Amino acid sequence: MAIQHPYLMFLGDAPDQLAAKTAAGVAHWRPDWCVGQLRLPDCHADLGLKDMTIAEAKAAGVKSVIVGVANRGGKISEAWITVLTEALASGMDLASGLHKKLVDVPALREAAKVHGRQLFDVRHPTRDFDVANGKTRPGKRLLTVGTDCSVGKMYTSLALEAEMRKRGMKADFRATGQTGIFIAGDGVSIDAVIADFISGAVEWLTPANDADHWDLVEGQGSLFHASFAGVTIGLIHGAQPDALVLCHEPTRKHMRGLPDYQLPPLGLCMERNLEAARLTNPKARFVGIAINTSGLKPDAAETYLETVSKEYDLPAVDPVRHGVGAIVDNLD
Amino acid sequence: MAIQHPYLMFLGDAPDQLAAKTAAGVAHWRPDWCVGQLRLPDCHADLGLKDMTIAEAKAAGVKSVIVGVANRGGKISEAWITVLTEALASGMDLASGLHKKLVDVPALREAAKVHGRQLFDVRHPTRDFDVANGKTRPGKRLLTVGTDCSVGKMYTSLALEAEMRKRGMKADFRATGQTGIFIAGDGVSIDAVIADFISGAVEWLTPANDADHWDLVEGQGSLFHASFAGVTIGLIHGAQPDALVLCHEPTRKHMRGLPDYQLPPLGLCMERNLEAARLTNPKARFVGIAINTSGLKPDAAETYLETVSKEYDLPAVDPVRHGVGAIVDNLD
Repeated sequence: MAIQHPYLMFLGDAPDQLAAKTAAGVAHWRPDWCVGQLRLPDCHADLGLKDMTIAEAKAAGVKSVIVGVANRGGKISEAWITVLTEALASGMDLASGLHKKLVDVPALREAAKVHGRQLFDVRHPTRDFDVANGKTRPGKRLLTVGTDCSVGKMYTSLALEAEMRKRGMKADFRATGQTGIFIAGDGVSIDAVIADFISGAVEWLTPANDADHWDLVEGQGSLFHASFAGVTIGLIHGAQPDALVLCHEPTRKHMRGLPDYQLPPLGLCMERNLEAARLTNPKARFVGIAINTSGLKPDAAETYLETVSKEYDLPAVDPVRHGVGAIVDNLD
Repeated sequence: MAIQHPYLMFLGDAPDQLAAKTAAGVAHWRPDWCVGQLRLPDCHADLGLKDMTIAEAKAAGVKSVIVGVANRGGKISEAWITVLTEALASGMDLASGLHKKLVDVPALREAAKVHGRQLFDVRHPTRDFDVANGKTRPGKRLLTVGTDCSVGKMYTSLALEAEMRKRGMKADFRATGQTGIFIAGDGVSIDAVIADFISGAVEWLTPANDADHWDLVEGQGSLFHASFAGVTIGLIHGAQPDALVLCHEPTRKHMRGLPDYQLPPLGLCMERNLEAARLTNPKARFVGIAINTSGLKPDAAETYLETVSKEYDLPAVDPVRHGVGAIVDNLD
């Protein structure tokens, strides 16, 4: 596929800023791609971008409208359809992260057909993937893994891409979730793939490349998450990572969505991830630890990072507070 | 769903006996359910059941026609459709293990609608599953795991069900693949579930039960299979097994479909499966080892089993040659 940029960020009638979280992530990591936002009268979110009509977006060269917003009740309302149809008629593609598919809205499907435009429902993989073959391929890969879901794997992967590109290294973020796909312009919602093809989809996503090229692969879930570990191990096996970065949020009380499950100790978590990774890449090793310290006071955060770094003999950073330079320094 | 028996086994124009492997498995494990077979003129398979027309099957009380055959080219031919439509018109349901869906054949979909019959495409889960909640539930569960794919997990699970029922224990085989689903009359093709819901589907399949009831859960894949480990770990987490049985085929040269991957040592394989199982059931333990010794001479088989049993201090049997009584003896 590959979603074409520049983007117009469609915020619809988002009830609050949090509902536009996906759009905000895209605007943060790809400011050059996001030339404007379109808000309906009842919208309570704001990305700080220029407000544009479809006609203004067209004049600004927009190629795709990104529906990066959680809407009320999960539906695509009539008010949205009018604007989105206008975008298609103006020659733009649409990309959505909603569960409800754009292609299942007859008016949009029809308009896309008439105007020869594409509809991307990024939560729903449309490609067919092969079963993983497990064969070694050239190029280097770094995978972010976590003690839990939602501990900063996407942020860390993107921060690594930015730092490596700044240093002139060949590096590409590889997206495995909806926000990441908008940011990369392509990718696979790996948790929506048929179980048999998880690793195969990741092999497709991170193909053979130059020997000095790094894929920064966005991790998902956790080997210690009782709901999602299948996704996680499939990602590990398919990515064949040379390098792993552990992501963690130290104030989390229990595994996300599972009140009876504690977070694993960092050492045990790294051990299990290495065991899994070494099946398809015997040289896999941890190169750093990324901690989301937003729940800690600055002093406590520094102490925590020092302790962790010393205990595991690895650079430990908060990507937001310190960047990830120390982790990139530790790559081969 | 639940496929109603008795069954008529539809062998179509199977080119050889191997093409009817699924049907043969069903006839072996559920002889009372399989009252006849229907073979088209060009059929080269034979289950040793009574040959029946649809009218004869109807008279014999058949409720479902099982399409348990690999056909030529993966298509549902015109010759099949005539017979299968007749079955629907006679009041029977259809169940198929083919990749190509019955519901995608307009003539069959229409006939099922007209006659109020059901079409079961058992390779394609149609239920919606919840994400796994990881909560402990009453009842006991045994899961077969393996060093590789196709090492006897289904056979072992069914042999355990038969042995336990013979002893008057409460035991139900829980099917996770197409042949198993025909044998159980219900189940989930777990490798065809969306990745996010693997464990949740298994929680659905093995629900709360009497404290002394055993689910015998059919395992899939292997933690050491670079293509399918996601399915395997999701199965382990969802099943929350109290007991595990390791299945192995000692003459296998490499992991199935992966020439570069060796089979894991049995001890390491059990260790990794226990690590995974103990996330959702800290009391999980191995209770036996089931070896497919069909590739060994009888003397070599006996020596192998004795060595394995001594090394891991567990009953080691070939379910075909010895039954699984020694494993059932070892259950709490």
